[in-house]
Amino acid sequence: MAKLQDEVTALIFDTWGTIVDWRGSLLDELCALGRRMDLKIDWEPFLEEWRSAYEPAKQKVNSGELPWTKMDVFYRQALVQLLAKHNITGLGEDDIEHLNRAWTRTRPWPDSVAGLTLLKRRYVLSPLSNASFAWLIDIARFAGLPFDCVLSSENARCYKPRPEVYLTAVNLLGRKPDQVMLVAAHNYDLRAARSLGLRTGFIARPTEFGSRQSKDFQAEESWDVIAEDMIDLARKMGA
Amino acid sequence: MAKLQDEVTALIFDTWGTIVDWRGSLLDELCALGRRMDLKIDWEPFLEEWRSAYEPAKQKVNSGELPWTKMDVFYRQALVQLLAKHNITGLGEDDIEHLNRAWTRTRPWPDSVAGLTLLKRRYVLSPLSNASFAWLIDIARFAGLPFDCVLSSENARCYKPRPEVYLTAVNLLGRKPDQVMLVAAHNYDLRAARSLGLRTGFIARPTEFGSRQSKDFQAEESWDVIAEDMIDLARKMGA
Repeated sequence: MAKLQDEVTALIFDTWGTIVDWRGSLLDELCALGRRMDLKIDWEPFLEEWRSAYEPAKQKVNSGELPWTKMDVFYRQALVQLLAKHNITGLGEDDIEHLNRAWTRTRPWPDSVAGLTLLKRRYVLSPLSNASFAWLIDIARFAGLPFDCVLSSENARCYKPRPEVYLTAVNLLGRKPDQVMLVAAHNYDLRAARSLGLRTGFIARPTEFGSRQSKDFQAEESWDVIAEDMIDLARKMGA
Repeated sequence: MAKLQDEVTALIFDTWGTIVDWRGSLLDELCALGRRMDLKIDWEPFLEEWRSAYEPAKQKVNSGELPWTKMDVFYRQALVQLLAKHNITGLGEDDIEHLNRAWTRTRPWPDSVAGLTLLKRRYVLSPLSNASFAWLIDIARFAGLPFDCVLSSENARCYKPRPEVYLTAVNLLGRKPDQVMLVAAHNYDLRAARSLGLRTGFIARPTEFGSRQSKDFQAEESWDVIAEDMIDLARKMGA
């Protein structure tokens, strides 16, 4: 591990799921909205449907079917459709905008801020997320994440796991791929990073998707570091 | 001012000169090097020549004569030439790299960190500098600047005052131009920003260039905010 700790100088983090509990945070906001508006809606499948709108939208950008579009826009389009489907009326434009931005009001996992704070003493830290650049700023401010900068798929104008996303980040960081480690709770993300020469760190987040989580319970490859949580990652990285 | 304070949500800062005293910091490092190596060199003109290599290099990128090149590279080329011109030998590659990176070991003006810390309570803060993205991270870490993210001319792959630099920053911030204020000690920078619809804040840094400073002693236009220093800017912006 000593060699890895000396070669790696920057850590980039998947954010939704790896650092913040988007699902628990969004569910809380949706349930509170339901109580305020006296709605009888099962918010878990609502949120699942909202979140899943992300995959086909991302694919369309990556295939060239759609021009570059920020994630914010996709989530908002999906939200408007879901509100109509569930006959939820009475929300104005500002309310919908506020609700959509719940994706930025996400609480960190209990170990995230402590672990990042330790890691920052030794490494440059940045998110590398499919969230937009502006949303990542808001996520970091809300959760108190001590990043040194922000990197988004938006910097490459396509989505993970397209190689450009990782390589644009590495280039902006002014480093070689093997000086940068991607930390993620998702094996697909790490596979893409490793294929480009980046180092890889895995943290399992087995409750990210609640009772319906079907994958990413454990590391599926021999990632460079496999950690229990962010504090364990900091320890294993000598920070 | 109330209207301005409510409309603006993000502040972007010229960095070398506006936030950090690059000249005093570099001179200290050069003088220390001179003492260690027992060199008899007048470091003020040396530094002036080093700094001035920046202008023609920047122009060549902006005119298309040169492809995008990071500022780090220009400063290093100029440094190697200057070392040869002054017959300074005995520095290895690592020493030269370390010396070139003195541009990232710059101390903030005495009011900078306090002012930025106040401003951060109300506004999103970012540099917008011709320094490279990676160097801006190092500048922020060295000086303890509480930025929310980093924005560089590198994001637009051309240099200020090209419009793309400001507009790329505004777009990544997810805002309209009039929601973003550029803060700078240089009137040319503010003129470019204002012509694109950004708000403008001026702080005079009359000792930036030492005794040879010839301009930017005061605001040359009615910028939206004209402040004594960063703390005064925070006060005037209601932070």
